[in-house]
Amino acid sequence: MTKTSDKHVGLSAAQEAEIQELREARSTTRRATVSALEEVLYDPIPVLDHGFVRVIDYMGDDSAIVQAARVSYGKGTKHTRGDAGLIGYLMRHRHTTPFEMCEIKFHVKLPIFVARQWIRHRTANVNEYSARYSVLDKEFYIPAPEHLAAQSTANRQGRGGVLEGEEAARVLDLLRQDAELCYEHYEEMLNEREDGSTVREGRAGLARELARMNLPLNIYTQWYWKCDLHNLLHFVALRADPHAQYEIRAYADAILKVLHLWVPIATAAFVNQVMEGASLSGPALRVVRQMIAGQAPTQEESGMSKREWDELMQALGRDA
Amino acid sequence: MTKTSDKHVGLSAAQEAEIQELREARSTTRRATVSALEEVLYDPIPVLDHGFVRVIDYMGDDSAIVQAARVSYGKGTKHTRGDAGLIGYLMRHRHTTPFEMCEIKFHVKLPIFVARQWIRHRTANVNEYSARYSVLDKEFYIPAPEHLAAQSTANRQGRGGVLEGEEAARVLDLLRQDAELCYEHYEEMLNEREDGSTVREGRAGLARELARMNLPLNIYTQWYWKCDLHNLLHFVALRADPHAQYEIRAYADAILKVLHLWVPIATAAFVNQVMEGASLSGPALRVVRQMIAGQAPTQEESGMSKREWDELMQALGRDA
Amino acid sequence: MTKTSDKHVGLSAAQEAEIQELREARSTTRRATVSALEEVLYDPIPVLDHGFVRVIDYMGDDSAIVQAARVSYGKGTKHTRGDAGLIGYLMRHRHTTPFEMCEIKFHVKLPIFVARQWIRHRTANVNEYSARYSVLDKEFYIPAPEHLAAQSTANRQGRGGVLEGEEAARVLDLLRQDAELCYEHYEEMLNEREDGSTVREGRAGLARELARMNLPLNIYTQWYWKCDLHNLLHFVALRADPHAQYEIRAYADAILKVLHLWVPIATAAFVNQVMEGASLSGPALRVVRQMIAGQAPTQEESGMSKREWDELMQALGRDA
Amino acid sequence: MTKTSDKHVGLSAAQEAEIQELREARSTTRRATVSALEEVLYDPIPVLDHGFVRVIDYMGDDSAIVQAARVSYGKGTKHTRGDAGLIGYLMRHRHTTPFEMCEIKFHVKLPIFVARQWIRHRTANVNEYSARYSVLDKEFYIPAPEHLAAQSTANRQGRGGVLEGEEAARVLDLLRQDAELCYEHYEEMLNEREDGSTVREGRAGLARELARMNLPLNIYTQWYWKCDLHNLLHFVALRADPHAQYEIRAYADAILKVLHLWVPIATAAFVNQVMEGASLSGPALRVVRQMIAGQAPTQEESGMSKREWDELMQALGRDA
Repeated sequence: MTKTSDKHVGLSAAQEAEIQELREARSTTRRATVSALEEVLYDPIPVLDHGFVRVIDYMGDDSAIVQAARVSYGKGTKHTRGDAGLIGYLMRHRHTTPFEMCEIKFHVKLPIFVARQWIRHRTANVNEYSARYSVLDKEFYIPAPEHLAAQSTANRQGRGGVLEGEEAARVLDLLRQDAELCYEHYEEMLNEREDGSTVREGRAGLARELARMNLPLNIYTQWYWKCDLHNLLHFVALRADPHAQYEIRAYADAILKVLHLWVPIATAAFVNQVMEGASLSGPALRVVRQMIAGQAPTQEESGMSKREWDELMQALGRDA
Repeated sequence: MTKTSDKHVGLSAAQEAEIQELREARSTTRRATVSALEEVLYDPIPVLDHGFVRVIDYMGDDSAIVQAARVSYGKGTKHTRGDAGLIGYLMRHRHTTPFEMCEIKFHVKLPIFVARQWIRHRTANVNEYSARYSVLDKEFYIPAPEHLAAQSTANRQGRGGVLEGEEAARVLDLLRQDAELCYEHYEEMLNEREDGSTVREGRAGLARELARMNLPLNIYTQWYWKCDLHNLLHFVALRADPHAQYEIRAYADAILKVLHLWVPIATAAFVNQVMEGASLSGPALRVVRQMIAGQAPTQEESGMSKREWDELMQALGRDA
Repeated sequence: MTKTSDKHVGLSAAQEAEIQELREARSTTRRATVSALEEVLYDPIPVLDHGFVRVIDYMGDDSAIVQAARVSYGKGTKHTRGDAGLIGYLMRHRHTTPFEMCEIKFHVKLPIFVARQWIRHRTANVNEYSARYSVLDKEFYIPAPEHLAAQSTANRQGRGGVLEGEEAARVLDLLRQDAELCYEHYEEMLNEREDGSTVREGRAGLARELARMNLPLNIYTQWYWKCDLHNLLHFVALRADPHAQYEIRAYADAILKVLHLWVPIATAAFVNQVMEGASLSGPALRVVRQMIAGQAPTQEESGMSKREWDELMQALGRDA
Repeated sequence: MTKTSDKHVGLSAAQEAEIQELREARSTTRRATVSALEEVLYDPIPVLDHGFVRVIDYMGDDSAIVQAARVSYGKGTKHTRGDAGLIGYLMRHRHTTPFEMCEIKFHVKLPIFVARQWIRHRTANVNEYSARYSVLDKEFYIPAPEHLAAQSTANRQGRGGVLEGEEAARVLDLLRQDAELCYEHYEEMLNEREDGSTVREGRAGLARELARMNLPLNIYTQWYWKCDLHNLLHFVALRADPHAQYEIRAYADAILKVLHLWVPIATAAFVNQVMEGASLSGPALRVVRQMIAGQAPTQEESGMSKREWDELMQALGRDA
């Protein structure tokens, strides 16, 4: 994880200056403090070509989870297992409320089509840059060649192989040209350029809230986004999953790295239990029991669909 | 409110057929039923140039609000005031939980930039058409000439006068041309046209989840959206407000009409109390008291800012 | 499931009359209607000694889940698998939003200590009988002898064997006597008896909101409670679980029966996937793979705690 | 606000020791820090006879609200008004999302009947002391004589004058005796005293989750409770209101004091706008306009109910 802010990362000069100032400020606090996270506080972690994630503030640490869980146990509790044991137990048994006692706030820069997936996570707080008030920056997401995936033919939601040669070149040309053209017309309709200058004297300029509708979905927006740890882990579980679109997965991966710095015990338990684990249905458990007993159950006998069967075999490392 | 579905309204042929079938089906139910709402069930109410709102399902009526409120009063209650009196009291005193006992589900077709404002209302349920799975229809919002507003110079968020003449014509040309061009390139990148035909043999086609990023924010999407009455009234209060962008206001106005059919007593109380009412601060109340007493308080003496003072004078019908 | 209302079930005469009236009313609707659920609409299902659950209203059915899921797939979808296949897929992959499109409203009578567990489910709407306004009925939960469990010595949260003989008799006596005494003093403080008569002329009577604090946690309260299907399934998963306290499990079991009537396909998928399934961690999956390969992994080698290991062996039907 | 922890405040010795330790720890942080709040961090603020509120952690300050609001304005904003002006504007126009960017966590000790009102605020996180796991402390709320209110005869929800003389004495005796008796029987059923000793050898003891049902609603519980600033202000608006029950108002008042330390600008705007303000309906605004114009509108002409009219006259300082 880089710790140096980077002009390529899509920060404005004003934001760079603000970050510098905040990084240098120090206060004394009685609050729970996580030094590994303090190290990267305010620093943008680059994601995609112009995006970033940076931590703006946080509340609580692994101990806050333990502390909240132990409220339930009261005075009579014998603290026989350590924090890791207790947190693992909570994670395994979906005792989720103690994880809600930690909170984190990010500043994120992301393409609008990613923002539209992200915002579906409702138990969070968000303040987004408003294109009703302000002119959007001229920054568009253009995939790196290795992420220029073809439509999967097997899976209607998925990606197939990577586009190559002329087809890839054409796609990149189209994305760049259309973004360029739409933004130029955005400025013309506004009658105002990105640098604040007027396009043509004597024109009124279309309202910002209208002109923005000409911009494509790969333009970058930014927001402050605040979430508790339980809901953030749920976000990561869904969005760092192989079924998630690559572009949001890149953000989820960056957040997962932040989680390892912030709450290392909870994050380890989460990776162990959720990211690397699997949920087995009743019929799937019966199949597993039969296989352990040396039997050779078949999909037909199992009562499972072909698709569910294949998923189980994959979880058991028995991909056809 | 139109009751006839309309081919200009942006429904596919399959959707038209489904609506027709549902409209003709009848069941017997013991549930609370609102005949005025049944009349328009499933019918699209046109909004903007290709959008609509239509009611898909609902639960409860004005009586359900009363019933829930009266749980609190128990056996000893004298039912001295009627339903309208009780609902008015609940609305006035922000006793909001009884309004949560009613629920409604809409099917909405709307431009993406409107969808991005709408989705900020988090206490609701939504399933949106996925451009990862499916090719989006070629339908874009192009403002009617009378809604082609200039940027306000007084208010950074607002609209000024309407663009006219050559400037208006140019804006409409740009919006139409760019939408046309971006969609054509969307099809080319997908290597698949809206009608399902292949653009060029021998190409793989870019993944749908990537190609869609070339589409502008005025393309239409659609979703099922379900909300309880309390949160829906809050939506209408914010989005049918003169400060809301015209395009989402058009949807909020359509929903307000539906509300009058569904829960006429609650809606009348809401319009009376919230839409036509105003919140006065402590200092504003003091100014009002002085004015009633025949005094002539000034902004300077009031402790109110110029802006707050102006807002108060406007609420009192004393606009400068 | 009983379909006849029953005076022992804890309904007041006024509630009985209202139910009778509602049961007889019939309306014609275009909405999705579930005849098996209509059969039991308004009928109290007895739970514990004086409690009940009854369905007051509902919205949607299994088809509403499918309809919402298919919005995502758009026009190009081949409907190759049936509703059950699609719902099973959604359940297995935790695609939870389509389940939110169904909504149900219950009237529940329950002891306060159960209500305190229940209310922790936040994504729901509730209106409770208010002891600030009304005098609470003289009804207390007294466990049936077979539910008079001893404290578990193995598990600090759990129950052990059933109390018997003199100890059981003494517990029941204490619970009955204290409830009786506290209620009598509640009436005395209020200076008002359950039947509305005055206890002693010339006294003012303590405010209801204060007098109720003398009542024990096993007194019954009642509420209207409305929830979407996704959150209701989560409620059932946690509260019909063997780790849940018996008294709330009795309510969750009654709700599960209602679910089988209302949304039989979704409920079957839920029971299959969640109730009868298990979540395996990464290390647990490795152990399973080793066992299938005929190896005999040990807890020590597995990286799992003793407790996690035991839970896994139990899920695999290998309890020590 | 007291800064000294106090043995009468209902803290256990272990909690006292933990507070002392936390109070002495100091860390360096780059996060926004509020020194006035740091002063009282971890200190219990006494409420009622054995309850308290203490701040355990917090995130953000007044500047965090401003920072979030200004994301919307982007690079082109002229920062012409100061933080107080902006926060006042946000509060007045119900732009609530920036207030969600601040978060605070409390440890609260409170009677169960107060906890039951408090928990109705759903947008918060909570971990409560579990009486399934642990034996509850022998602490009950007994009102101070000046809060021993009679039932209001005018208002079914409210309190009238204070009980006096023999009636007051009898109420206090009953509350104390019943609490004492119920707790004694709780210990007997558990077969375990508050100090951990066994009541009678050879008995199994009733499960904790069952025995607790004998305890009255004025027994104290405790929890960790975390909430964002927007929802906390809503809590205070409802619970510090004169219509709220005195006992929860005492907690809301304590929290309001904390808010003045933590976010003084936002709290001043809130008091000004919400606590000291009033919402006027459309008809009420018309009446105010007529009164300012020197007319003498009557309730009959106004279209307002008697009750709404009286509330308006009270807001205008014209109580009959």
